[in-house]
Amino acid sequence: MGYVQVYTGNGKGKTTAALGLSLRAVCAGKKVVFIQFTKGMKYSELKANLFLPNFEIKQFGTNNFIFKETSKEDSDLAKQGLDFAKKALKDEIYDVVVLDEVNIAIYYELLKVEDVIAAIKERSENTEVILTGRYAADEIIEFADLVTEMKEIKHYYTKGVPARVGIEK
Amino acid sequence: MGYVQVYTGNGKGKTTAALGLSLRAVCAGKKVVFIQFTKGMKYSELKANLFLPNFEIKQFGTNNFIFKETSKEDSDLAKQGLDFAKKALKDEIYDVVVLDEVNIAIYYELLKVEDVIAAIKERSENTEVILTGRYAADEIIEFADLVTEMKEIKHYYTKGVPARVGIEK
Repeated sequence: MGYVQVYTGNGKGKTTAALGLSLRAVCAGKKVVFIQFTKGMKYSELKANLFLPNFEIKQFGTNNFIFKETSKEDSDLAKQGLDFAKKALKDEIYDVVVLDEVNIAIYYELLKVEDVIAAIKERSENTEVILTGRYAADEIIEFADLVTEMKEIKHYYTKGVPARVGIEK
Repeated sequence: MGYVQVYTGNGKGKTTAALGLSLRAVCAGKKVVFIQFTKGMKYSELKANLFLPNFEIKQFGTNNFIFKETSKEDSDLAKQGLDFAKKALKDEIYDVVVLDEVNIAIYYELLKVEDVIAAIKERSENTEVILTGRYAADEIIEFADLVTEMKEIKHYYTKGVPARVGIEK
């Protein structure tokens, strides 16, 4: 049986943990699809499919997503992402489906929480689902089987360190 | 310049985040060594080097590490691990050095916190260092540039779900 895992909170490591889980799953012969909501930037992880068999990554976001000023394009892309996710969750092709930053897409009202939960409920029985992003909705936390809050204790951006290729992006 | 990142806390996702960071680093052309303390079990991630170029993983632990009843073998292996890490940190070969579960090795007195910090201080200037494991020592938190606490909000082991190959191990 597949479970629902959530990585939320304001600390570094949410998308990164989902990437690590994908790597581990691929090592064990599993098939993974990594769906990024609200993200359209050319992150290093987009190249992961060059190395990993049975790993697909797909973005449904613009490269200039601005919190609180979301555009129609952001909203259309998020909806396309959810449609893609629905199929991926239902098909028995994937062992692991990652909905990266889906919590953000819900928080900024690009997606309805009930639509996301409905899509997950209709998944193929053995599919493991990973949701990431800060501000996880109460309904998501209630629905999930596992929730980890990544809590920022200390961050180097306060020292002026920018996001670095291969580390943060 | 390389920074020191710590992933600690009682929640799921610490080693997993370090694996994800390794994957992202490799995607960006960086070279990674992943050193596992207190672990000797055949985790799925041991196969990651079959897929990823510039990724090495090495274990310095028994496959039956028991908290609070550590053996001389545990202690000898941890010290060998630290010697190996010292070299890896000092050489300019690796862009990222992961000290997986080193916090546990310190907590159970297999390693001295000051020896670990000294090894990190003597690293090659551009080497990024990732420390994982619950119970991070105050000295480690103080010394680090970034600290995330993975906090367990909900975990499915309370429902009796065992660690699964490709997901937890």
